[in-house]
Amino acid sequence: MSLRVRFSSRGLTPPDVAGSVVFVVDILRATTTMCAALHHGAKAIIPVDSAEEAMRLAQTIGRDDMVLAGERNCLRIEGFTLGNSPREMTPEMVQGRTVVLTTTNGTRALLATQAADEVFVAAASNITAIGGRAHAALEAGRPILILCAGREDEFALDDAYCAGRIATLALGGRDVADVEHDDATIAALDLVARYRQRWDKPLRASTAGRNLVRLGMGDDVADAARTDAYPVLAHFHERRVLAVRPAA
Amino acid sequence: MSLRVRFSSRGLTPPDVAGSVVFVVDILRATTTMCAALHHGAKAIIPVDSAEEAMRLAQTIGRDDMVLAGERNCLRIEGFTLGNSPREMTPEMVQGRTVVLTTTNGTRALLATQAADEVFVAAASNITAIGGRAHAALEAGRPILILCAGREDEFALDDAYCAGRIATLALGGRDVADVEHDDATIAALDLVARYRQRWDKPLRASTAGRNLVRLGMGDDVADAARTDAYPVLAHFHERRVLAVRPAA
Repeated sequence: MSLRVRFSSRGLTPPDVAGSVVFVVDILRATTTMCAALHHGAKAIIPVDSAEEAMRLAQTIGRDDMVLAGERNCLRIEGFTLGNSPREMTPEMVQGRTVVLTTTNGTRALLATQAADEVFVAAASNITAIGGRAHAALEAGRPILILCAGREDEFALDDAYCAGRIATLALGGRDVADVEHDDATIAALDLVARYRQRWDKPLRASTAGRNLVRLGMGDDVADAARTDAYPVLAHFHERRVLAVRPAA
Repeated sequence: MSLRVRFSSRGLTPPDVAGSVVFVVDILRATTTMCAALHHGAKAIIPVDSAEEAMRLAQTIGRDDMVLAGERNCLRIEGFTLGNSPREMTPEMVQGRTVVLTTTNGTRALLATQAADEVFVAAASNITAIGGRAHAALEAGRPILILCAGREDEFALDDAYCAGRIATLALGGRDVADVEHDDATIAALDLVARYRQRWDKPLRASTAGRNLVRLGMGDDVADAARTDAYPVLAHFHERRVLAVRPAA
């Protein structure tokens, strides 16, 4: 059994992810926003790494079937319908549509996972669904990598805490010492011990959270801290994020 | 006032360090070993990034005036007199000599700081001296960067905890919220809250510590956990680490 955490996607190479089940975290706000959109009926999210690529891609999809969303420095990109706020992903805006999304850190992390065995998109919004999948993967002996988007390739407290919550659920009561792990996994679990079940604390203390509050988007921080607010199992495959429906 | 922590030197650029007082941490074992050598009378340490460079440099120094030390994968490099163990840096081996040292992670971190205003070498061994200098620098309004060597460019628990101890001393009772800081600073302080004053716990839990124990070098881990065991203010300048004598 193997459980690893990376605090950013900097330097991540295909061999680092090959064969692993990867959980990508950019809780403020890309992965929360993706969960919100899927929960509210978006057909799919296509993450792309530039506004130009988003606009090119948009032209290949019918105008009524897609919506352009994304941010730079937390603000909506000019000419885009939506920014990167989970609260903008209302049923009115996204239902039945494909959301083409470009964000600063989260998109980069997702695009770095292409060699993975399977990739899921994680946040507080869907933590129970994600935790269940992570636990099942660990118990099945599949290597797990929790990949934080981080902030400009550096450590981000909000993502690291979320990684700790996923790791806790993956372990499901097992001692981390009984599985193969790295130092980042221990530190992420330490953050959970530190902040306990309080999503709001690390989110508000993080640089990303403080920036959003300063820009008047504190409600997005509060939204991202809501456990299972958008309880979709969000799966990334062939460049699209889709909601996986349970087999029932 | 500004206090930042980097969990590895990956991607560190000269603008990241320019103008800052930098504290470099590779507690298992390079910075502990440097403190031990200086405390036991070494004239200087010259960190170099390859065994070849160490041997070339050794030839330019008189044979009796220097000693070659270094490791790859924790083991002494073939042909070198010493490995990278603080316990090898006895007065008999190092007094009056220059130690040419090459290690995997610590050397790389030190060599990444060349644009800094001032650079110190930190470990548990000299934490009080380092903490005093960090506090003075913060109070003087000089930007502080605590640079962890990390492990193969990734997060290392042992170094991160040491960073938290330095940050705690730098703050000297100030609330971190009252100084400019990054998310890694908060996480490092959180590790101190988690492990309190117990150096041994994060050191033994870290991958580096577990590797050393497995290789029969658990005594090095215990040695690195001794507070102020080698209480030198180790200063890196013009590619040499020297013990700064207090002005008295």
